[in-house]
Amino acid sequence: MAVKPPVYYGDYLQLTKILDAQAPESAKRGPAAHDEMLFIVIHQTYELWFKQILHEIASVKELFAKVPMPSTALSTIVGRLHRVTEIQKILVDQIRVIETMTSLDFLEFRDDLLPASGFQSLQFRLLEAGLGVTAKHRMAVEHQFFQSRLKPEDRQALQNAENSPSLIVLMEQWLERMPFAQFDDWDFWSQYSTRVQNMLDRDEKSIESNPTLDDRARGMELANLQATRESFLTLLDASRWQQAQTEGRVRLSQRATLNALFIQLYRDWPAMQMPKQILTLAVEIDEQMTTWRYRHAIMAQRILGTKIGTGGSSGSDYLKKTTERNRVFTDFFNLSTFLIPKSEIPELPDFLKTEMGFSYEGI
Amino acid sequence: MAVKPPVYYGDYLQLTKILDAQAPESAKRGPAAHDEMLFIVIHQTYELWFKQILHEIASVKELFAKVPMPSTALSTIVGRLHRVTEIQKILVDQIRVIETMTSLDFLEFRDDLLPASGFQSLQFRLLEAGLGVTAKHRMAVEHQFFQSRLKPEDRQALQNAENSPSLIVLMEQWLERMPFAQFDDWDFWSQYSTRVQNMLDRDEKSIESNPTLDDRARGMELANLQATRESFLTLLDASRWQQAQTEGRVRLSQRATLNALFIQLYRDWPAMQMPKQILTLAVEIDEQMTTWRYRHAIMAQRILGTKIGTGGSSGSDYLKKTTERNRVFTDFFNLSTFLIPKSEIPELPDFLKTEMGFSYEGI
Amino acid sequence: MAVKPPVYYGDYLQLTKILDAQAPESAKRGPAAHDEMLFIVIHQTYELWFKQILHEIASVKELFAKVPMPSTALSTIVGRLHRVTEIQKILVDQIRVIETMTSLDFLEFRDDLLPASGFQSLQFRLLEAGLGVTAKHRMAVEHQFFQSRLKPEDRQALQNAENSPSLIVLMEQWLERMPFAQFDDWDFWSQYSTRVQNMLDRDEKSIESNPTLDDRARGMELANLQATRESFLTLLDASRWQQAQTEGRVRLSQRATLNALFIQLYRDWPAMQMPKQILTLAVEIDEQMTTWRYRHAIMAQRILGTKIGTGGSSGSDYLKKTTERNRVFTDFFNLSTFLIPKSEIPELPDFLKTEMGFSYEGI
Amino acid sequence: MAVKPPVYYGDYLQLTKILDAQAPESAKRGPAAHDEMLFIVIHQTYELWFKQILHEIASVKELFAKVPMPSTALSTIVGRLHRVTEIQKILVDQIRVIETMTSLDFLEFRDDLLPASGFQSLQFRLLEAGLGVTAKHRMAVEHQFFQSRLKPEDRQALQNAENSPSLIVLMEQWLERMPFAQFDDWDFWSQYSTRVQNMLDRDEKSIESNPTLDDRARGMELANLQATRESFLTLLDASRWQQAQTEGRVRLSQRATLNALFIQLYRDWPAMQMPKQILTLAVEIDEQMTTWRYRHAIMAQRILGTKIGTGGSSGSDYLKKTTERNRVFTDFFNLSTFLIPKSEIPELPDFLKTEMGFSYEGI
Repeated sequence: MAVKPPVYYGDYLQLTKILDAQAPESAKRGPAAHDEMLFIVIHQTYELWFKQILHEIASVKELFAKVPMPSTALSTIVGRLHRVTEIQKILVDQIRVIETMTSLDFLEFRDDLLPASGFQSLQFRLLEAGLGVTAKHRMAVEHQFFQSRLKPEDRQALQNAENSPSLIVLMEQWLERMPFAQFDDWDFWSQYSTRVQNMLDRDEKSIESNPTLDDRARGMELANLQATRESFLTLLDASRWQQAQTEGRVRLSQRATLNALFIQLYRDWPAMQMPKQILTLAVEIDEQMTTWRYRHAIMAQRILGTKIGTGGSSGSDYLKKTTERNRVFTDFFNLSTFLIPKSEIPELPDFLKTEMGFSYEGI
Repeated sequence: MAVKPPVYYGDYLQLTKILDAQAPESAKRGPAAHDEMLFIVIHQTYELWFKQILHEIASVKELFAKVPMPSTALSTIVGRLHRVTEIQKILVDQIRVIETMTSLDFLEFRDDLLPASGFQSLQFRLLEAGLGVTAKHRMAVEHQFFQSRLKPEDRQALQNAENSPSLIVLMEQWLERMPFAQFDDWDFWSQYSTRVQNMLDRDEKSIESNPTLDDRARGMELANLQATRESFLTLLDASRWQQAQTEGRVRLSQRATLNALFIQLYRDWPAMQMPKQILTLAVEIDEQMTTWRYRHAIMAQRILGTKIGTGGSSGSDYLKKTTERNRVFTDFFNLSTFLIPKSEIPELPDFLKTEMGFSYEGI
Repeated sequence: MAVKPPVYYGDYLQLTKILDAQAPESAKRGPAAHDEMLFIVIHQTYELWFKQILHEIASVKELFAKVPMPSTALSTIVGRLHRVTEIQKILVDQIRVIETMTSLDFLEFRDDLLPASGFQSLQFRLLEAGLGVTAKHRMAVEHQFFQSRLKPEDRQALQNAENSPSLIVLMEQWLERMPFAQFDDWDFWSQYSTRVQNMLDRDEKSIESNPTLDDRARGMELANLQATRESFLTLLDASRWQQAQTEGRVRLSQRATLNALFIQLYRDWPAMQMPKQILTLAVEIDEQMTTWRYRHAIMAQRILGTKIGTGGSSGSDYLKKTTERNRVFTDFFNLSTFLIPKSEIPELPDFLKTEMGFSYEGI
Repeated sequence: MAVKPPVYYGDYLQLTKILDAQAPESAKRGPAAHDEMLFIVIHQTYELWFKQILHEIASVKELFAKVPMPSTALSTIVGRLHRVTEIQKILVDQIRVIETMTSLDFLEFRDDLLPASGFQSLQFRLLEAGLGVTAKHRMAVEHQFFQSRLKPEDRQALQNAENSPSLIVLMEQWLERMPFAQFDDWDFWSQYSTRVQNMLDRDEKSIESNPTLDDRARGMELANLQATRESFLTLLDASRWQQAQTEGRVRLSQRATLNALFIQLYRDWPAMQMPKQILTLAVEIDEQMTTWRYRHAIMAQRILGTKIGTGGSSGSDYLKKTTERNRVFTDFFNLSTFLIPKSEIPELPDFLKTEMGFSYEGI
């Protein structure tokens, strides 16, 4: 049997390739602009991290796709989604490094890069698609904007990714398999509904008796409350829910949503702890994407103002507008509206206490 | 002469008062909700930090008000504004701590606090006023919203603060005293204007020849460019500028703005280094305020959804809407539109090189 | 029934007390030194956070003391210990704020504070005692150093705290109640022992065949490996373990330690997920304490060099020396030495698979 | 004239090379270990950042080497050193990402990598050498440890780097060119010396009258104070200083050190502001290197305990030992010992006020 040769750090990491891949465009017409190196290096680190995130998301999707899911899979999923959020924090923090570049220095090589643009990052598009942002969910103009900037082969790769089930689709199926949306012997949802109504009634009284609100403000608050009541009616009514889905106000199925809500309410029970962490991590991934978009937009504006960027368009303006859109897990985020004080949550019946606990709990 | 008694840590910090000031409202009707302590403590740390920021801003305003300014004052101002931004980062980071509180736990004591609200923080209002957010700059509805929530004496204290010159007003006067907006012997602004026009012409060509833009996108970009050209015309024309001020599109005087732009262009020259750091710090203070507002709004929404908060109103929605408004130093931020590549900045004439350098430079 | 009066923000937070508790000593002999305000405010925020941490640790200790522990307690413990670590991160980050104070500015009021010292913070000592740092674990000189600086009543309060069971003691008892240290029908520990031996044998071969080690380095590595082998023998032998305890090389009982190791090995199993997070959080709390001590020492040295501090002694030097000592959960940290590749961990027998999973796992 | 083809994002960044450079060793003997991808990717991002830091340090060294230095160079140096510290913060923060890898997962591929080691990173060694850590300053055993692990060509490249002047050497020469170590008409150093003696006398009195010190502690403090007095004598005496240099207690020349101290004392004066920022940044670079070493060591120990790493040796132990050594700019850090209250610093004579200010100061 052949013995493997000893591994050397630089060879293992293929540093010859990695460290030989920085060719400033500005150098093609004179001495290289000092700061173009930073511009190249930071984008390359972004792409390396995107590759890693795609690696994690792909593996998590595989685990969600296994039915039934192996006992230890939830813990692995939590670990990998947590890793994704830690990487995302680095993506955000790195913006501080690019912010050390001044306008005056960036403008020295901006024109050399035209019309290349960060919007052409295939991996970033694949990441969005992998989570669940698809052509269907984008505005038409935005979709077209991206399409026109990608090379045909990249466009095709993105198309393929959008055609396979995204993380949110697989999570929805997993949630739908859970048995909490209805119980044979326990009228959970009507008990819960009463508690929510009570809470909203108390809120109405608070608004009405609040001495710090004037009539106009009081009117607005009561209108908001009415909207909350209607969301709640929608949540518990299958046909209203379907209507909301059709209109794009919600994305997940009613069954998946109710099960997710159940997880949130009983999050402290052993069997709910990992599922609850998964829901939290999904929202955190969305939030980090949003933060990155926002910080990136502000950074671009600090450097360029309203001038066009390397893509030959004022991308920062665009980025800013999309900061809040393109969230994927909004339905999980919005569940907080329907949470009630811990002490008012209906007590679990014994059969569920058994099923949702485990033998070692009581030591 | 009486000898001062030895100082003891706990007495010096008046810990008897500080650590005896946490009285949970929930305890008045049963056992205290565990998490109310966190709610109290974190708000008290916020108020302590607000006090510190007010202390720094007051001292910086005093220094700007001294004419002529002493030689070492700029460095002191930079140090203190930098400290403000470091404190602001803590204010933002602390939100992570409050995020460890779940909806279920917060709802246990939310009703006990009604109708108290963070919007009633007098110090936060004083801080906004001290920087330059005044009744005049707020939307009418927002102004009224705050007024109705403050006790009469707090309302009066705020009124007084709004009547004294804010930081931005004092900075404007300081900038106006600078001699860069026009020079007897050097036609700086026309030279500079030519370079900007050239840059914008190149940008126009880039947009027109950009293969990745379709007709619609190209049209939008050309319209943006035209808007940039018009901002630039406004910058250099006194009567257009006045018009923009009247319409609220800009806040600072033209003279202050041109001097600030000159500082940005020649930021590497010794005499411009501290002034440039001051402009940067002002923008950073704005940015941190915005980040705090945004993160605070998201946190409130995570915990409450669309439910009302302790103030008896859905404040998170409000906070979110005002995230981008209430910036004070927008005019400094927007200067980046008018920056050009370092290599194209007109060379300083000799008399300015002398004045803006110093004797030890060439060692 | 009397109606509760409406709550007002400033009254609720007792801001009259909180914001009236800053009395600079320097003001007693002339105009106050500008930076003394920062010095007071930051220490007051530290004390507020210490109060909060003590609140969380006390509640966690109460939960660990309940036998049997209620089903949802583990989740609550995880949440509260996690909160402690988030607060600790703020404690560390805040050092950046104090670092904005220069030597020159601090020296303006240092002499006014003598001989007050941060070492006199009773709450910090209570926190150490609550976790498990006691007089017994400190060096004699350190213990005496603290004792002499506290007022008699504070010394007594600390004494009382050291006499009640600390967090580590309660965690040890909780771990000892777990049933993993031995099984009737499954010879886990001998299977595991074989795998570890194999791993260490492979390591020995690696050292011997490593072409990058010279003889001296190889000798050192083999000696290290031998020490690791001996630690492992100690782990599995009751009388050796007791000897190690007596000599202060380990702190926890053998039974608690083996159960903690079992948790680490099977961390992905549902029943082990919360216990594993608890062990991780305990180590993280230690690590944050260490980081805080280190950063605090460096900050003091940056400002004072080898000069004495406000306590009339060169505390930074002291702090630096104790950075690594005073860890409490070292035994958990050290378990990593005994972990093996996931694929080599013995498979659970069926009875344990049932007990350590739960019914909803396989959806 | 040939027209440049349009630039495409993926081509510009050479993503074909960058994203095709991840070949897990574990895949050579079966399915790849999931976490090896992270291990490769994070090390590649480290190497990219090292390349960027080397780029900045090289340019800063070039600027320091220009005599006389151009007027705007100091500002450029500050900007680039600041960028280095921002990158270093990312290097430290990234450790959080690698910490998401568990022992169990790392051990799945550790053996595949033997005997590759992070100590073989040529760029990291070049960085140390560029700052001023050379064979001469390392312990012999450490030097040998590194030498034996590098390929001959890498060893040669490192040798070459160590033979060219490092950053600290160029900074020393720059400081020596400054004219503050002695003045014809102003007896600065004796005035200053009196103030320091007064300060130390006051400190001595404080120690003696401190009621919270017992005899033993008082003795230690007085011994510390005596050591401080001696350092101070050394600072002002050429032959003692030379002796200290010979013994390795200080590194910089006396002249460079005194000039650096003068900068610190008059840091608020216009001409001193950039030099002071440079000294601060040098210390910050050291501090970040130390933090990185420490966090890296703790991370390795969390994952491996006392087991050997991929280099076939227990590197974490080594790293921990060298955390505090290998600092380069210790002499700057130690200057704080000799700083005195701002109000006691001798007033500048008029000729210096003129030279160290500039014409626009008094607007």
